[in-house]
Amino acid sequence: MTIPGPYLLYLGDARDEISVKTSRGVAVFRPDLSLGEYRRSREAVTLGLPQMSFAEAAAAGARTLILGVANAGGILGDEAVEDVVAALEAGLNVAAGLHDRLNAQPRIRAAAERAGRQLFDVREPPAYLRVGTGAPRRGRRLLTVGTDCSVGKMYTTLALARALAGRGAPADFRATGQTGILVAGAGVPVDAVVADFISGSVEMVSPARDDDGWDLIEGQGSLFHPSYAGVSLGLLHGAQPDALVLCHEPGRTSMRGLPGRSLPDLKTCLEANLEAARLTNPGVIAVGVALNTSKLDPEAARDVCAATAEALDLPCQDPFSMGVDLIIDRLDECFGLSRPLANTGR
Amino acid sequence: MTIPGPYLLYLGDARDEISVKTSRGVAVFRPDLSLGEYRRSREAVTLGLPQMSFAEAAAAGARTLILGVANAGGILGDEAVEDVVAALEAGLNVAAGLHDRLNAQPRIRAAAERAGRQLFDVREPPAYLRVGTGAPRRGRRLLTVGTDCSVGKMYTTLALARALAGRGAPADFRATGQTGILVAGAGVPVDAVVADFISGSVEMVSPARDDDGWDLIEGQGSLFHPSYAGVSLGLLHGAQPDALVLCHEPGRTSMRGLPGRSLPDLKTCLEANLEAARLTNPGVIAVGVALNTSKLDPEAARDVCAATAEALDLPCQDPFSMGVDLIIDRLDECFGLSRPLANTGR
Repeated sequence: MTIPGPYLLYLGDARDEISVKTSRGVAVFRPDLSLGEYRRSREAVTLGLPQMSFAEAAAAGARTLILGVANAGGILGDEAVEDVVAALEAGLNVAAGLHDRLNAQPRIRAAAERAGRQLFDVREPPAYLRVGTGAPRRGRRLLTVGTDCSVGKMYTTLALARALAGRGAPADFRATGQTGILVAGAGVPVDAVVADFISGSVEMVSPARDDDGWDLIEGQGSLFHPSYAGVSLGLLHGAQPDALVLCHEPGRTSMRGLPGRSLPDLKTCLEANLEAARLTNPGVIAVGVALNTSKLDPEAARDVCAATAEALDLPCQDPFSMGVDLIIDRLDECFGLSRPLANTGR
Repeated sequence: MTIPGPYLLYLGDARDEISVKTSRGVAVFRPDLSLGEYRRSREAVTLGLPQMSFAEAAAAGARTLILGVANAGGILGDEAVEDVVAALEAGLNVAAGLHDRLNAQPRIRAAAERAGRQLFDVREPPAYLRVGTGAPRRGRRLLTVGTDCSVGKMYTTLALARALAGRGAPADFRATGQTGILVAGAGVPVDAVVADFISGSVEMVSPARDDDGWDLIEGQGSLFHPSYAGVSLGLLHGAQPDALVLCHEPGRTSMRGLPGRSLPDLKTCLEANLEAARLTNPGVIAVGVALNTSKLDPEAARDVCAATAEALDLPCQDPFSMGVDLIIDRLDECFGLSRPLANTGR
């Protein structure tokens, strides 16, 4: 699957940041591919990119509309269907990561055929999956885990991959969600696979590696989210991580989508993840905490990072505003970034 | 979905008990519906039912062939396809619980259309599922959990449902696997749903209840099985159990399908299940241990039950050879079988 770039990023009529996290993720991590944005109304969120109609984008060279908006059920609404049809008619391909498939919508399929354009459903799992085995595999892997959904796991994972590469270590981002797949151009939508294949799909997306590099695996959900914990646990077992980074948003008062349900305490959450991860990698350790402090002022952000670092005895940073150098330093201390893999048979 | 009975139970050329556990489950729990068995060869396992060809079974009144055999990938082999076509041509409907769907096999579909017979894929999940919420719901629920796959969770759950009904308590078996669905005539194949909907599908199959009865929910896999733990965790959260029964087969040397990987210790396994279950039901307790002692002599079976009861401070029985009365007694002590639900708002 290769999605032709550059992209026009769709924002629809979204009024909140979390709804557009896919479009924003692509804009932040693939600025080279992000030509412009399309908003349905002036009240919608903006990414600060040039505003373009579908025809303007096509004329400017855009090849694909990225439908990078999300709602709770992953549903394709009527307005989005209209927009997709219009984009196809303007000559753009369309890529989306919703549970509702573009290919399953008769109006959209017909429009794509008429226009001779392609549809990319990145949440469609691969046709052939296998059951996970938990058998030890060579290579080094880091997984991001979270207290909740949408706390910055993808951003953190991408930032870690970039920072590692910056220090000369071979480093590959392994995408497990739709935004990550659109950014990386490959991956497995682990929340969309048949339940029996969760861990197996992660073993596939992060195969054994024999260099001294790292796979940086994007986590999903939370072991403490009653809607999605099964996905998180299968991902944890399939990832077989050597290192975990815990992601969290300070100040969030309830679990995503579940008003009234509070988030787990960070120490409890990290311990539970380490304990579960030991099933497939008994040597797993935590190497850092990544906080999304975007709602705090800089001083409060520094304070909460310092307090968290102290409480968990781990480096703690906001990857967006502070980078991830302290976490990479810890990874280096524990594993040695240029040290060859020990001959452990793994 | 109503599968017409009575049934002819398919055994194919299976040589081991685990491969025919679906056919045996139906024979044991629905003797009223189990008219005969079909074996491909004299070396195949038998259920002790009358041997019948497809034509003989149809003449004797059988309405449906139950393809109650399983292999690792849930694949439909060439010989099974031939047999299904022959059964359809003899006038039988066919029901199966494999990942490979009857309806997806062109030869089988064509034969069913020609013969005017129905195909039942019980592992096909419902078309409309919703994401779980973990919101407390009324009613009492017991879930079986295991150290491994295929240790007797379905058998134990059915035995508990039967014993509770025998004591006059309203009790419903809630099936989560193909055999259970064939036995109960309803349920959700939780290992076949899209990963995001695991807990939601269990919330659907075991809705709130307002009488003083119990839902007995069939567990799947094990939190300690690296292939399937995600399914087990989502099921645990969706079930929101008040009571757990731990299932185990003493003497098993490795996890099902994973030679060399040892089973968890019972206490560790039970504690991990209780801890995870508290996310959606903080009051959850364990009420017993069910051992599959079929490979032990009666004295050894009694000894291992006594030792396990002592070690875990819980009643411990083999449901097949000893019944489940001690476990039901404990359930009665802890919850009161005829005591009305406390008005806790749940």
